[in-house]
This record gives sequence, structure tokens and C-alpha cells, in this order.
Amino acid sequence: MPENPININGGEMKEPVGAEVVLTHLQKITDTLKGISAIDTTFYKSAQKRLDNLTKPRGSLGKLEEFAKRLVAITEDAMPLLDKKVIFTFAGDHGVAEEGVSAYPSEVTKQMVFNFLTGGAGINVLAKHANAEVVVIDIGVNGNFGEIGGLISKKIVSGTRNIRKGPAMTRDEALKCVEVGIHLAEDYAKKGCKIFGTGEMGIGNTTPSSAIAAVLTGMSVPEVSGRGTGIDDDSLANKIKVIEDAIRINKPTPSDPLDVLSKVGGAEIGGITGLIIGAAAQRVPIVLDGFISTAGALIAYCLEPKTKDYMFAAHNSVERGHKAMLKKIGLDPILNLNLRLGEGTGAALAMLMIEAGLKIYKEMATFGEAGVSSKVQK
Amino acid sequence: MPENPININGGEMKEPVGAEVVLTHLQKITDTLKGISAIDTTFYKSAQKRLDNLTKPRGSLGKLEEFAKRLVAITEDAMPLLDKKVIFTFAGDHGVAEEGVSAYPSEVTKQMVFNFLTGGAGINVLAKHANAEVVVIDIGVNGNFGEIGGLISKKIVSGTRNIRKGPAMTRDEALKCVEVGIHLAEDYAKKGCKIFGTGEMGIGNTTPSSAIAAVLTGMSVPEVSGRGTGIDDDSLANKIKVIEDAIRINKPTPSDPLDVLSKVGGAEIGGITGLIIGAAAQRVPIVLDGFISTAGALIAYCLEPKTKDYMFAAHNSVERGHKAMLKKIGLDPILNLNLRLGEGTGAALAMLMIEAGLKIYKEMATFGEAGVSSKVQK
Repeated sequence: MPENPININGGEMKEPVGAEVVLTHLQKITDTLKGISAIDTTFYKSAQKRLDNLTKPRGSLGKLEEFAKRLVAITEDAMPLLDKKVIFTFAGDHGVAEEGVSAYPSEVTKQMVFNFLTGGAGINVLAKHANAEVVVIDIGVNGNFGEIGGLISKKIVSGTRNIRKGPAMTRDEALKCVEVGIHLAEDYAKKGCKIFGTGEMGIGNTTPSSAIAAVLTGMSVPEVSGRGTGIDDDSLANKIKVIEDAIRINKPTPSDPLDVLSKVGGAEIGGITGLIIGAAAQRVPIVLDGFISTAGALIAYCLEPKTKDYMFAAHNSVERGHKAMLKKIGLDPILNLNLRLGEGTGAALAMLMIEAGLKIYKEMATFGEAGVSSKVQK
Repeated sequence: MPENPININGGEMKEPVGAEVVLTHLQKITDTLKGISAIDTTFYKSAQKRLDNLTKPRGSLGKLEEFAKRLVAITEDAMPLLDKKVIFTFAGDHGVAEEGVSAYPSEVTKQMVFNFLTGGAGINVLAKHANAEVVVIDIGVNGNFGEIGGLISKKIVSGTRNIRKGPAMTRDEALKCVEVGIHLAEDYAKKGCKIFGTGEMGIGNTTPSSAIAAVLTGMSVPEVSGRGTGIDDDSLANKIKVIEDAIRINKPTPSDPLDVLSKVGGAEIGGITGLIIGAAAQRVPIVLDGFISTAGALIAYCLEPKTKDYMFAAHNSVERGHKAMLKKIGLDPILNLNLRLGEGTGAALAMLMIEAGLKIYKEMATFGEAGVSSKVQK
């Protein structure tokens, strides 16, 4: 359970748009949150029974067995399928990039979206390796793509505003971002996709993610701020100051996760929050990529702790502050490969491990089938 | 460098067979060891140059980038192939099983070989997942299989002798086991296989592996002895006593790794040692599975430390003593999934990660190709 009581209505409704619109978006989120149930752990027992009957010492496949059990409980299916895998890479820009918090210029966000669409990026290579589809969503890129094949256009903002000077987004914009994610989860669940992965692209986005981490874990900004794409000591010191300023100026309310998202978050982070909420409501397992994805997941968790039951943490990112967020949610990362790229790359790799667990569960012979002595000697 | 000087001739040659035969087997091992060169790390530089030109922040794919660099240096090929992967599962029995060191009866070794051949075991499922072939070798099973499809019959012993009462094998038998592994490495390299994985099956084989670990790392027996297939506290205490007795009675010479193999080792462990030596001589990367495989690898490393350059450690086994052996060799495990099954299961999973690294290196777009700004801003 999160330490702070959940407050999804927010303290105030001072939005530039009509309160009615805000309520509509809020209604979708509220309804989806209401539709999330904790997984029924009695399914663990039946799954464990099958696992214990396979030709291997009990428990000897460690985490692979845990993955299988959780998939059974999530799907409430004794023989779950993972045949259609999809990774959602949300792209958004960040006004705070003008503060020199990243090693790369903002234009790279848009350039990388083109790279995703032509298949040349890390996520394309690793998703193909894992036999997963990549869905690229423009939720907040600064700049227009026009009519372009393969891109899902759901632009809510053209880059967030500089959080050092004021809120990243209005509350309404933040709600809309979350709603985009929820709708995607619903659409792809309907299409028969059996497991989702999160991913993102957004120059500057470790800065809002560290701000979210600090506000929602209660840790200090230096404790949760890292080098992102690879900044030097001076730039890191500046980044920490920028985040501290952003929190001081915007005063995000820790007990109101959507306030935190709108004031110091980002569009792609909101999309990820929504995707997770939607996945949990649809009973679809969801693999969190790294630092930025986990910031989105932490918001989802603070809105509804039951979302945790549907999450798998792909890996332990190099980025400082990742561990603190995973700990707050209560997740143990699957891989530890010193990754810090994002895009969904870690999620793609972790899907291969989760799938391995399911295959063990479904495809191994039992002691009886194989004629192997199961009796443990005294 | 190992702390002990290498001595492959052994102190004594008191074998039941003629000294000439022993020398023939020794000659093959000696020649193969002479053919092993350290990898040329100047290849790292050219590989790093390509990696740094790909559309991602430098170094952001962590260990995946290291895998790619090492594959380039091992193969001395700027664009290595991993298209044919093979996992060698060596099966052998252990006389020491009669001391009650395992939770399963010895018959299970033979039963599991049948399970491997019909595709129902953990290694079959995970090798298929990794698109790797499984090669099953009878190197020391107690019992005959007759003519059976798919099994490579290279039986050197019909189970080792009980190490609590005397040496596991004669020196000649141990040399022959190593030679089996060398020949397999040569044959499969010739067949065009690009990466090898090690695996084993042998009820009781954590006992000789712990003995090897204790002798070659200098740690105490309790520090390197674990629960294997899942024994209780009493059985573990007994197992420790058995291993201590075996070392006291056989007096294996730490500076003579083949003496250690013959006195307190096992046939499948010797096969793995040979496979690793052969792989290194053939410049084929080799993925070590878990505890027992690493005991075989430690013998190979003590015979010729350059073998290390060709090794990848698949995972961090639950089995106590694994870490100490990896540390002695100087390897960092790729996965940490609480596995303790053996057979090559961890190697299959780790191959997927190594291959991911190579795909990143070969398939990602460069900054120039993708039109992405590579210039890091100040």
C-alpha cells in the first residue's frame, strides 16, 4: 500500500479549459481504476502444482517459475498465451531541456521517432529479437510529423513547458495523456495482444522522472538524479538544481499523483501511467522498461496499488533513483545489464525471460509422461 | 593468472593402462592447450567505434555492448555470426551418490537422458526458445542405452567410483573425458556452429563440483557446498562430511587440475573442461551454465588461463560455491534468475542476451544513416 492516501480529484480545478472537460477525462480514469482487481493468488497453487510435477527438482527454475505463476493468476487461464507481444514507445518533448539537463538537443526526440519508424533504433532491433511489435506514439513531441506511416498520433502537448518556470502541463493535459494510454491498452487488448511493454523517447525526460521519484518516494533530489544520456559533473549539478527549483516552484502534492504528473511530469510519462492502468483493468501483464517507465508506473501505483500485480520490472537501470522507485512499488527487476537507453529496450529483453518461464510451465514433460522417478529419497 | 603453477603432467603415472596410452591422450590435450591464444583486444577498439556511432547514447546498452565487442575479438570478424548455436549436455553418474548426497536416486540420470532425447526436459524447452540445438552425450552414465537415436555415445566410465573411498577415475579416464570434449568442440566448429553452451546431467554431481571448488579456490568445503537438487539440513551436513573425506582420502594436488578432475571430479565435468579448451582453441565463444559447468571451466582455466577470454558466465546459480569459482576465473554472470537446474538451461537463456548484443551491434542504424544529431551539446 502506498504511504499517501489516494486523491485523484486534485486539490484545485483551476484549468484553462472548462471544468466539464476535465471531469470527462477524469471519469474515464476513475472508471478504469475502479475496474482493477488484485490478482487471485489461489491460481498460484494450481500453477505450482503443475510446476512441481515437471521433470526438474522443485523450484529449480527460480524466477522463471514465478513468472509462469503470475501469468496464470493475471490471466486466470491455466494455459496462458503470450503469442502477441507489443511494446509501446511514447514520445514527448520537455521544455526543461532548455536548461541544459541533457547531453542531446531536443530535436533528437523527433529524429528518433523517424528512426523508430524506419526500424533503425535499439528498440526495433531488440523487439524483433523478442518477436514483439513496436507501437510508436506521438503524445507530446514538439514538431509535426504530418501524415506518416506507422505513427500513432495522439499529441496532447507540443512539448511540455519548462518545469523550472511553472507546471509541465495543465491538469487537463495530464489527464488526457493518461487517457491516451488507457485507450491504447483497451485497443490492443481487444486486438488480442497478450503482453505489453512500456517504452519512451524524450530528450530531457530523466529530469521530470527524477522529480516524480523525489516527490513520490520522499527521497532527496540528489539521491534520485543521474546522468541520463551521459552528462558531466557540472551538468549533473545543474540538473539537480533545476529539479529542486521545479519542485519548489510547482509544489506538487505527493498525495495527488496526477498533480505530480501535471506539474513536474511529462506527456510520455502520463501515457505510460495510463497504459499500465489500462493493462491492469484488462488483466494484461505489463513489462516496465527502465527509469522513466518506472516513474509512470509509480504514478499508476500511487493511484491504485493493485496495478502492481500486473507489472514486471524488466531491469535495474544504471540511472540513479530507479531502485528507489522499484522499492516503493515493491518490484524486483528481472535483468541487470547496465542498460540506460530506454525506448522499451529492457522490456523487450525481459519479455524473452518471462516467455521462457511460460514455455517451461507449458511445454516440459511431467515425471509421469517422461518415466522419470519423482520420488525424493530420504 | 591462476595462483598455482600449471602442471598438466601430474606427479605420478600409476595407471592401470599402459603409460603410452596415457601419453597419447595427454598429447591431444597438450597440443590443444598450446593452440589457445589470448584474444586480441585491439578488436575492442574498432567494435567500440561502431557501437559509438549507433543511434543511442554512448555505452547506454551496457553489457550488451560488451558482449558484441568480445564476440568481435574472439572471432576476429568485424561482423560475427551466431546463427548456429549448440548446447552440449554431458551425462554421467557418480559413485558417491550411494552416500545419500542427492535428493534423487542415480537412475534419474539415465531417465533424464531419455527425457532429453524425447524433448521433454527443461533444456529442450529453453534451447528451442533460444533457437539452439541440444547435443546429448553419454560420457559416464551407469547403464547402457543400446542403439538410440540422437545420443552421442562416448562412454568413458559407467559412473565414477565413490570418491569417499578412492579416486573417481583413473588419470587416463580423466584425460579421455577431456579429450571427448575437445573432439566435440572441433567437430561442431567444423560443422559451422558459432557459439557453444555447456550443460550436464548427473545425479550427485554437485558433490564432486564442490570438491573441485574447494581444492581449486582454497575455500573450505562448507563454504562451497549447497543443497543441489534440494536436500535437507541433515543431508547437507552429511554431504559436507563426504566431500571433506573425499579430499582427505584422495589428496588431490591443487597445482595439477587433471589430478583434481580424476580424483574428486566426474566424467561430465571432464567433458565440459575439454569442450571449453577445444572451443578456445577453435576461437568459438562458449557459454558456461551453472555450478557444475563452472567446476569444469575452473579446471580449464587452471590448465590455461587464456580460456577465460572465450567464456561467458550465463548466470549466478543458487548453489553455494558458484560465486567463488566465478570470482577465481574472473567472470561476471549475465543473469540472476535463481536457477539451479543445470542441463544447460541458464546457458540457453544467456545466449539470448549475448545474441541481443550482437544484433544491436550489427543491425542498429548509425547517426548518419538515421539523420539523428550525434553532437553532444555543451
